[in-house]
Amino acid sequence: MNVSTINRQFILQSRPKGFIAPGDLKLVETPVPELQDGQVLAQVKYLSIDPTMRIWMAMDSYLPAVAIGEVMRGFGFAEIVESRHPEYKKGDHVTGLTGLQEYVVMSPNNGRPLFQKVPKIPFVSDTVFLGTLGVNGLTAFFGMEIAQPKKGETLVVSAAAGATGSIVGQIGKIHGCRVVGIAGTDEKCNWLTKDLGFDAAINYKHPDWKAKLAAAVPHGVDINFENVGGEVMNTVLGLMNLHGRVVLCGLISGYTKEDPGLASFGTLLVKRLRVEGFIVLDYASRFMEAGTQLGQWKMFGKIKDRETIVKGLEKAPDAINMLFTGANTGKLIVKI
Amino acid sequence: MNVSTINRQFILQSRPKGFIAPGDLKLVETPVPELQDGQVLAQVKYLSIDPTMRIWMAMDSYLPAVAIGEVMRGFGFAEIVESRHPEYKKGDHVTGLTGLQEYVVMSPNNGRPLFQKVPKIPFVSDTVFLGTLGVNGLTAFFGMEIAQPKKGETLVVSAAAGATGSIVGQIGKIHGCRVVGIAGTDEKCNWLTKDLGFDAAINYKHPDWKAKLAAAVPHGVDINFENVGGEVMNTVLGLMNLHGRVVLCGLISGYTKEDPGLASFGTLLVKRLRVEGFIVLDYASRFMEAGTQLGQWKMFGKIKDRETIVKGLEKAPDAINMLFTGANTGKLIVKI
Repeated sequence: MNVSTINRQFILQSRPKGFIAPGDLKLVETPVPELQDGQVLAQVKYLSIDPTMRIWMAMDSYLPAVAIGEVMRGFGFAEIVESRHPEYKKGDHVTGLTGLQEYVVMSPNNGRPLFQKVPKIPFVSDTVFLGTLGVNGLTAFFGMEIAQPKKGETLVVSAAAGATGSIVGQIGKIHGCRVVGIAGTDEKCNWLTKDLGFDAAINYKHPDWKAKLAAAVPHGVDINFENVGGEVMNTVLGLMNLHGRVVLCGLISGYTKEDPGLASFGTLLVKRLRVEGFIVLDYASRFMEAGTQLGQWKMFGKIKDRETIVKGLEKAPDAINMLFTGANTGKLIVKI
Repeated sequence: MNVSTINRQFILQSRPKGFIAPGDLKLVETPVPELQDGQVLAQVKYLSIDPTMRIWMAMDSYLPAVAIGEVMRGFGFAEIVESRHPEYKKGDHVTGLTGLQEYVVMSPNNGRPLFQKVPKIPFVSDTVFLGTLGVNGLTAFFGMEIAQPKKGETLVVSAAAGATGSIVGQIGKIHGCRVVGIAGTDEKCNWLTKDLGFDAAINYKHPDWKAKLAAAVPHGVDINFENVGGEVMNTVLGLMNLHGRVVLCGLISGYTKEDPGLASFGTLLVKRLRVEGFIVLDYASRFMEAGTQLGQWKMFGKIKDRETIVKGLEKAPDAINMLFTGANTGKLIVKI
């Protein structure tokens, strides 16, 4: 068997306060376990680095918090190296909750829908199944379904150069919306407008960004796809039109510090806004439908993506922190 | 003509800070104006006292703020005393934005849908057209449509002994929900459970009210019909079930002091809540449909109501303040 008998894995040693500190995640070596019937052993090739990982480390949410001493939860792309399950064979590619480790024993029958076999597509990177055809694409797809975009409406998306936000904006363009992105560097803003076709992109680190945002939405905002929360969200809400929709996808500004809340809740009432929180896992029964559509859009160039790849499992904790400093553009991935 | 030539009216003299202070509204006497063709002169009999009046005095919202020096806006029930409109005659009853005054000149063709002719129904008080068959009933009806109640779900309504809240709870019972009201006195709570059929009612002025509320919703909260905001709302949100709905009807706790905002916006995301603000005026094209249903419910005793009547136009400013101290049970009305 061409498999190492030693598995390197990150276990959660302490719950982070603010950014992830050295020692919150500890790299340990454990033996690769023996397979049982119905299980597969997979070698993790790529890890998807997502803001929600910071939540999993800290507290119970839509999933229970990772227990202290447990392997850190994470979504990954893996190749099967040994199988005792009739439907999976060595060499198959799968995605699922692999955890932050080199090898994982998975039980396909128990792990659905988060355990998925994925095809090998010529000229397409395997990592597409973590981003555009993975959690981010699905999140953008179902979030935009909640948003109910209509032609000519104005969509503002925050964290627009992130893996989800960049797809959200492109879906908005497919629906004929005016799309304005909010991001944290001029380079990201250029990518959004020059490469992805956003109508405007605002760098929220410029001192006059609020005036620029207001100028970029001359007819107000009909849809706010919110990934950030805090001051960014409060500013966009001030520009919303009557009967606007706020799709609450993430509140990343509150994950490493106290939740700033919503300054003026009364705005929701006076403007008759609909605010809806959602978690992509609730749409598991429709993943195939969404994946088919996203794949088509990607194939025809309607959705473009970019990746920031960090090499080495040991860099995973730093990679998670990169999300909160805005160091990545597009999908952030750790290559093991 | 059996009409006084002098009209007493409240004009807005200064915008209130906190409660309405003496002098914010000033009682003045002006001549009753001459009628033009297409107009009617109506004598105001009853004024509907609503929390939204405090907003109209202070700031632009879903309607522009009342201008300084202008007659204070208000919804009322009036009897036509002179008509130069072919469809209206002396003695007809109407409701509409009469303002806080004894006489009002109205232009039926311009005032729709807020100007409505109402029938005279034997054994039914005229004031029903301000409450159960007026703004409050309509607000409860369309708000509960947004809530999409299902049999067996749990509904929590705040300001439950108010004109809107009390109807909301009864509509919840019609839909087969478990209904829990939040109110500010034991007497109000008794009214809700003994007379209106609420399953439980919690007095939020008791020190242990949060524990009692939690005990009253053993299966969590599916619908929060929110009239109050602030600490009451934040407490209910903490008890919401996944995919719960928050109907944002009013935020009265924030009208006389600073908007306390929402403590944990992340709750909306993690619990996948839908929060929707609404204003009943948006449903004007369906007022007849709703009124017919509400009238039927009232006739068959499915909806009961109670009124608190304050006598004398000069008491109107104090009456508005009563809403914010919780001094009224059911519909608050000023009888002129």
